[in-house]
Amino acid sequence: MLNHFHHLALIGRFNTPGLGATLTQIAHWLIARGPQVYVESETAANLEITGLSTLPLHQMEGKIDAAIVLGGDGTLLGAARILAPFGIPLIGINYGRLGFMTDVPLTQWESALSHLLAGQCMTEKRTLLNACVTRGSTIVFEAAALNDVVVSRGAIGGMIEFVLRIDGQLMYQQRADGVIIATPTGSTAYALSANGPILYPSLSALTLVPVAPQTLSNRPIVIPDHVRLEIQLVSSRTEGAALGVVHSDMQSFSELAPEDVVQVQKSPHCLTLLHPPAYDYFATLRKKLHWNLMPGH
Amino acid sequence: MLNHFHHLALIGRFNTPGLGATLTQIAHWLIARGPQVYVESETAANLEITGLSTLPLHQMEGKIDAAIVLGGDGTLLGAARILAPFGIPLIGINYGRLGFMTDVPLTQWESALSHLLAGQCMTEKRTLLNACVTRGSTIVFEAAALNDVVVSRGAIGGMIEFVLRIDGQLMYQQRADGVIIATPTGSTAYALSANGPILYPSLSALTLVPVAPQTLSNRPIVIPDHVRLEIQLVSSRTEGAALGVVHSDMQSFSELAPEDVVQVQKSPHCLTLLHPPAYDYFATLRKKLHWNLMPGH
Amino acid sequence: MLNHFHHLALIGRFNTPGLGATLTQIAHWLIARGPQVYVESETAANLEITGLSTLPLHQMEGKIDAAIVLGGDGTLLGAARILAPFGIPLIGINYGRLGFMTDVPLTQWESALSHLLAGQCMTEKRTLLNACVTRGSTIVFEAAALNDVVVSRGAIGGMIEFVLRIDGQLMYQQRADGVIIATPTGSTAYALSANGPILYPSLSALTLVPVAPQTLSNRPIVIPDHVRLEIQLVSSRTEGAALGVVHSDMQSFSELAPEDVVQVQKSPHCLTLLHPPAYDYFATLRKKLHWNLMPGH
Amino acid sequence: MLNHFHHLALIGRFNTPGLGATLTQIAHWLIARGPQVYVESETAANLEITGLSTLPLHQMEGKIDAAIVLGGDGTLLGAARILAPFGIPLIGINYGRLGFMTDVPLTQWESALSHLLAGQCMTEKRTLLNACVTRGSTIVFEAAALNDVVVSRGAIGGMIEFVLRIDGQLMYQQRADGVIIATPTGSTAYALSANGPILYPSLSALTLVPVAPQTLSNRPIVIPDHVRLEIQLVSSRTEGAALGVVHSDMQSFSELAPEDVVQVQKSPHCLTLLHPPAYDYFATLRKKLHWNLMPGH
Repeated sequence: MLNHFHHLALIGRFNTPGLGATLTQIAHWLIARGPQVYVESETAANLEITGLSTLPLHQMEGKIDAAIVLGGDGTLLGAARILAPFGIPLIGINYGRLGFMTDVPLTQWESALSHLLAGQCMTEKRTLLNACVTRGSTIVFEAAALNDVVVSRGAIGGMIEFVLRIDGQLMYQQRADGVIIATPTGSTAYALSANGPILYPSLSALTLVPVAPQTLSNRPIVIPDHVRLEIQLVSSRTEGAALGVVHSDMQSFSELAPEDVVQVQKSPHCLTLLHPPAYDYFATLRKKLHWNLMPGH
Repeated sequence: MLNHFHHLALIGRFNTPGLGATLTQIAHWLIARGPQVYVESETAANLEITGLSTLPLHQMEGKIDAAIVLGGDGTLLGAARILAPFGIPLIGINYGRLGFMTDVPLTQWESALSHLLAGQCMTEKRTLLNACVTRGSTIVFEAAALNDVVVSRGAIGGMIEFVLRIDGQLMYQQRADGVIIATPTGSTAYALSANGPILYPSLSALTLVPVAPQTLSNRPIVIPDHVRLEIQLVSSRTEGAALGVVHSDMQSFSELAPEDVVQVQKSPHCLTLLHPPAYDYFATLRKKLHWNLMPGH
Repeated sequence: MLNHFHHLALIGRFNTPGLGATLTQIAHWLIARGPQVYVESETAANLEITGLSTLPLHQMEGKIDAAIVLGGDGTLLGAARILAPFGIPLIGINYGRLGFMTDVPLTQWESALSHLLAGQCMTEKRTLLNACVTRGSTIVFEAAALNDVVVSRGAIGGMIEFVLRIDGQLMYQQRADGVIIATPTGSTAYALSANGPILYPSLSALTLVPVAPQTLSNRPIVIPDHVRLEIQLVSSRTEGAALGVVHSDMQSFSELAPEDVVQVQKSPHCLTLLHPPAYDYFATLRKKLHWNLMPGH
Repeated sequence: MLNHFHHLALIGRFNTPGLGATLTQIAHWLIARGPQVYVESETAANLEITGLSTLPLHQMEGKIDAAIVLGGDGTLLGAARILAPFGIPLIGINYGRLGFMTDVPLTQWESALSHLLAGQCMTEKRTLLNACVTRGSTIVFEAAALNDVVVSRGAIGGMIEFVLRIDGQLMYQQRADGVIIATPTGSTAYALSANGPILYPSLSALTLVPVAPQTLSNRPIVIPDHVRLEIQLVSSRTEGAALGVVHSDMQSFSELAPEDVVQVQKSPHCLTLLHPPAYDYFATLRKKLHWNLMPGH
């Protein structure tokens, strides 16, 4: 249990009617209880929040004890990739559609933040990945990922063909729409859509899940997270193969040239998530993903 | 069994070393046995074939009794979409990677074409689809499809959200990478990669297979092929949703604007495929797709 | 639309508290509106219903215009296998857990039966299968099936190994827990649990779905329903293979001896289901199976 | 690398023509190179091996440095459950059908055993599970498992319904044919047939894979292996639910009574497997399971 949160940041989803008022209300509620509160600068500008101190995301290192995110999982992912290296823990209040990671229901923000201030939140470490694209000896793209690194085809035409290596050893060569390298956090995001397994959040593991692989005999694999993965597109002699795109958390991306190599490794940093004491991961799976919901129920 | 093939066309895959010579050899072998033979004009140009009569694909109607395709399934698909409305049957000789539809192995062309000339080939009817994109009252795209019509996301960013209607009735609303409407022929192509069922070729049925759907509770459905399907993108209020692309046989495509409606119906035309007498569909599934291959075998 | 229902039967699920009273109430409601009503004899005995005419299931042929089933899908399946050959249509009122086929909610029985008496119900034909086990030249088991015929392993030990033939032709040899031959009706029952596709009810098709097949490269197949299927267990030289059991609708069964052949064909009979006019198959899929339910909804 | 194998045991698959001679040949080859060699007593009896020292499996503790198994994975599993608690490493020579764990091809036994004697084999630790069935306060069944613990239905009739708890917390309630708790080793056995993910052998994780679950929204989950799992059958008020059976490695089993609780935990022991230096896990997946085998290859 962490217990001293004297400097807090508030981060909100952009272009969201009503969120500015809610965020302001939460800020004043917090200030009344002692902590110094900053609204993330771009949030303040976008939601037209005034009368509160602001701080840019990139300057929060060393100044903020925890960040409160109001939004959906997309908002939290964006903030997490920047704040995790600063060691700043996040708590998510759901103002989005699904809110799998932003697990505090909006109606329960007061209770959740009371627990936060009282040092009663659970802390949970989540793995981050680093993706890096090299073209010859040049690094042409670098990004952190909390959910996944995805190599996939372009919008037009056919599949990509790629070779996947683990610690330098061939894992497989495949034609597919793409391949997802997902952390346990990401296992309930895009990888789940592509038929991947759910990984318990604390597992030191990654899962490799192809999207629409051109083989009947594929199956997702779960591997230790301390490996070095390499994906290289095969410049195909066959019809229909196209070059691809690499995405980090489906937010940041780069197009791939013929000889590019995508390298993925565990980041030295990890993300700390904060949850109210009653947080129950399996209940979240059942409730939000309808996991194992029986017919007729 | 069809039995009078006096006018034959030869169609070949482009940019394929050695194919020009093979195709010329087959042409002379056929001419020596009686039929009049035309090389498809673009094939002749691309493969630098000389000394044989040529005929453009679009002018074959009424002049050709059957077309012989040397290439992979992609070559056959391209020719089939144009020749099927003319009622011209096709036989495929495999000069490609997989050759699921071009089922005559290259080494057996002589035997297969002997059967063809002797009127001993099996004929098999394959359903074609018509896809049509309407923007308001304007048709902005039209295409035939032998395998599938696919509505999918762009290269960058997130999933599409769409509503799928059947004969005007809601089937489902979904977020996914895309959705495949496949004929029985297409059920062993892209739809199979997306976890769709195999449909026996003669079934009067289509299958709807989502690609990476954002729900755990999806499952492919098989429906009669005399229905009218409509897919409409939902211009999403949620983050990450993007507009999409529609493909026919993954070869012809159109980008989709916000209010576009994609309509798919069975074509009044169908394709006739010719197979040597020993053709065995299930053996092809086992051999080419490794269907049900047991471990250790 | 059928329109003359003068003789009706009521069939109820056994051992169900409260059902006797409901069934009696429905009987009197019907009698007051004209039709002659019989309670199925075993239902009357089991639910201790008195003061109403009774008729055994096997004697309903020619005497009953439609049967009303109160119960779950299991109750309807049991009655359907006997009444379908008599040409008696069924309407199902849900008094069970799921009620996918017994689609009238209990609270709406009055409205549904009003439609029935007014001749306003939709009729829907459902395919039946005949399963037959031959041991040498002797038939040792015969059963009709509305959902499925399943060949599966015993309770103890390993998988079965079998050969599946279609019209005498090898489809595949496989090791698995079992294999399901499902009608469109059965495609939303056990076959769905084993990852089979949904078949629209009116399709003239069957699906073959293995349960836990010992191969990565399996995939369900959908075939025309006018074929003759044969399953023969391979008396295995390998460790762990056991003899199996054949089930019809998971209700009637027979154990299999080493050389037994299970033959499955479409029945000459079919079942007629009656539905209230507002019946919507796709809505039932979405509501009862949570088909395509999006996360967070 | 282990390096001193002075006392070796030979264990063979029963009732296998030719195996007695091969095993005797290997024994003499080993003896000629120094080690003391024992044939496992029941192997010797079953295969009618004479003229060599014998030792019962249960008396090998402290007397044997490594055991060489000739057979299939079933033979190795049976030996491993007894020898693992004694700390005796195993090397498997394939004399069976698949030989996923008995990874030395029969033709390469001489090379593999040369590496063994030279101390050049790789060692690999594999997790074992303990399963235990309690009825009230009595333990009615206990077994070790190297692959999996499976709770499943009986041969006749319908699904089981069970509650699955992890460290006392509800994971889910489900109706299914069964549920598999698999180690990484077992992830390529029965769990793979039931659509489970592949877990890299060294992962400290288990996977829970239902067999034919009666829900569309299931998905396998991967959890840490230091948890305590509990499966309790729900004595069902609904039709069709039956009591079940628990299996360990599909070899040892017990029938379950209504209030029985199946508890599964990681064993304090683990199994040590020995592999020749060139062993490549991913190559084994590709070669023996045809993992990711592309169509047409």
